[in-house]
Amino acid sequence: MDDAIAREVVNRCRHLATCSDEPGYTTRTFLSDSMHAVHAGLSRWMADAGMSVTVDAAGNIRGVHPGSSSAARRLYIGSHLDTVPHAGAFDGVLGVVMGVALVESLRGRRLPFSIEIVGFSEEEGVRFGIPFIGSRAVVGEVDATLLAATDASGTSVAQAIGHFGLDASRMADARAASNALGYLEFHIEQGPVLEHLRQPVAVVDRIVGRTYADVTFVGRAGHAGTTPMEARQDALAGAAEWIGCVETQARRMKDLVATTGRIDAAPGAANVIAGKCRVTLDVRHADDAARTITVGRLQSAAEDIAARRGLTVEWSPRFDHQAVAMHPALVSMLSRAVERAGAAPHVMPSGAGHDAMILAPHMPAAMLFIRTPGGLSHHPDETVMDGDVAVALAAGANFLEELAGSVDD
Amino acid sequence: MDDAIAREVVNRCRHLATCSDEPGYTTRTFLSDSMHAVHAGLSRWMADAGMSVTVDAAGNIRGVHPGSSSAARRLYIGSHLDTVPHAGAFDGVLGVVMGVALVESLRGRRLPFSIEIVGFSEEEGVRFGIPFIGSRAVVGEVDATLLAATDASGTSVAQAIGHFGLDASRMADARAASNALGYLEFHIEQGPVLEHLRQPVAVVDRIVGRTYADVTFVGRAGHAGTTPMEARQDALAGAAEWIGCVETQARRMKDLVATTGRIDAAPGAANVIAGKCRVTLDVRHADDAARTITVGRLQSAAEDIAARRGLTVEWSPRFDHQAVAMHPALVSMLSRAVERAGAAPHVMPSGAGHDAMILAPHMPAAMLFIRTPGGLSHHPDETVMDGDVAVALAAGANFLEELAGSVDD
Repeated sequence: MDDAIAREVVNRCRHLATCSDEPGYTTRTFLSDSMHAVHAGLSRWMADAGMSVTVDAAGNIRGVHPGSSSAARRLYIGSHLDTVPHAGAFDGVLGVVMGVALVESLRGRRLPFSIEIVGFSEEEGVRFGIPFIGSRAVVGEVDATLLAATDASGTSVAQAIGHFGLDASRMADARAASNALGYLEFHIEQGPVLEHLRQPVAVVDRIVGRTYADVTFVGRAGHAGTTPMEARQDALAGAAEWIGCVETQARRMKDLVATTGRIDAAPGAANVIAGKCRVTLDVRHADDAARTITVGRLQSAAEDIAARRGLTVEWSPRFDHQAVAMHPALVSMLSRAVERAGAAPHVMPSGAGHDAMILAPHMPAAMLFIRTPGGLSHHPDETVMDGDVAVALAAGANFLEELAGSVDD
Repeated sequence: MDDAIAREVVNRCRHLATCSDEPGYTTRTFLSDSMHAVHAGLSRWMADAGMSVTVDAAGNIRGVHPGSSSAARRLYIGSHLDTVPHAGAFDGVLGVVMGVALVESLRGRRLPFSIEIVGFSEEEGVRFGIPFIGSRAVVGEVDATLLAATDASGTSVAQAIGHFGLDASRMADARAASNALGYLEFHIEQGPVLEHLRQPVAVVDRIVGRTYADVTFVGRAGHAGTTPMEARQDALAGAAEWIGCVETQARRMKDLVATTGRIDAAPGAANVIAGKCRVTLDVRHADDAARTITVGRLQSAAEDIAARRGLTVEWSPRFDHQAVAMHPALVSMLSRAVERAGAAPHVMPSGAGHDAMILAPHMPAAMLFIRTPGGLSHHPDETVMDGDVAVALAAGANFLEELAGSVDD
């Protein structure tokens, strides 16, 4: 796999980044108008590579490269095409464009399995506050409740599907074959680990589990000038002490990350002691027990701090996702493929959720991370290096070859 | 002064508390629509008491009870009409309503000085982050810079004045007479001291000095799932650590209070590490040196925390007010007036800033505190006791009589 192909992949991603809901930025939400332009580009490249192209009822674009027999099982390769607001050019899109490039590189050669490239319509959860709508459709998990969910303008998922020119009643047709061979996803790491290790790629063995909760400290608002320090029940001071505990506890548990990204103090005036303070908590770890233990410690710490300060604390769980393992045989196969591409077969968990997490319970799944310079993602300056993309493409080609050798024709 | 008048004062305050920008709460910011309703009520009561009523260019409502001669000097009695968000019914408003009641009690009798009741339009600093706009206008301290300041919606002070139906170019007319006799302000204590002492009122001898600053920690936004704890530059975690220092340092300095009442973390999403976090700091003490020493310690602590965490910190002073003494002769006169009203003449500093602080450098100023049950202020449950208001009104009437005896007709 030469550097020219990698360069072309990067150029295609940069081209698709110009398809945006917001001029001057890359912002592309589920089934927005700019998604039509992305589909037009991908559709042309897929067709040029000999694939038959369709868009399913969830708005996923799908290109099929047939196998050597009509009964061949199917390998899915995909990632998502939607973005966060003011995104970069590679989060999601890179994995779809690389899949197309791998099929192009076959130059029409048929393998003992068919390959379907899927560009998922929705992964980020921006428009409806519900992530993974595209991959949920492929595993048959788009139900009436999800179709009835509404965006900020009051449009439902079902209506958005209609506005895009699709038919929500055909959702069942979006499901993957029941005898699918597997799912492969290329994705940027979106973190600093590979850069720190000076490695171009990593094989993902596991997607971390995640606990998300809202934690609210309630005290008593009071006048900032007339309430002596010893007479205060300051909800923000309590929350601040707890944020310190979150950091300390996260550092005590190897490889755990815990984040308090949002804080709201009420009433929120400089001269009023805060009577209420809400903080979001996001805890992730590849090992569910490690995560659960830490979340328990943080809940106890919040209660202790509240009791000591004459506050109360409300702990509102938002969700609790278990860690998801990638398929061991595919992880090994992908590691060998990386090694044959001349890179160290570094294996690591994914700290972010990905479509592979939704597919994994339904078929063997594997993921390859590509180094992200500066760890910078969800940002216009997000980038990748051509050489790293070349290594990932070579590993992908090696993976297809070994898989071809292992599958009965 | 009988209890019926005190009850009527309390009822009027509770009535004005229904004039609000936010249904179900008392929230009334500078020149908001609900201020028109407050002016309508006060204007009627002032006119019924024989006062001539105007609203000056800063939105202060002013009612004049003439003196026995046209050359009579003028005593100002006032307080503010704006509130913090979700306020009570008495902070500020009580002082204005009591002033009107004192003039009513004169039943048209003229004293050797005129009396002007002033309901200041702005004291809390909520809308523009600048407090005392109303009393600043009365002492000629509203300049072009203040008029150009903007609120959260981008509206300037000058524009807000225009929207309220006033003419900012007439600001000079708002100035108090240069030969003013003095300024008297009734205000709830807003703290627990009088309740603890079981006293209905206190004479204020000093208003504490106050430092207000915005402190912004700047780090680096990042993905909550993919950025290891040791690779973070979390601005909110840094701010939280510093909030802990603010509490600790405040407790080290006797009688000092320090408050972080408002916090904003950006981008403010649960799954993004905060790249920026702004916190407000409010430090107060009756002794300016004690305050200055503590502010210096807090600034050093912010810089140390930032340096250790790979953050930067921006320290933006908003204001720095020295402690302000009330006029000794008026403090004595008010103490005698309290004693003749049958209460102990307790003297104490004010931990809160008041309009009296702005007036004091320009004319002799005095303040009387009324006990605040539970010390509760800046809260919907803020209240006063009728009997305490009656004592304060009696003290006010005694003060007017002694002042009348001491002024040449």
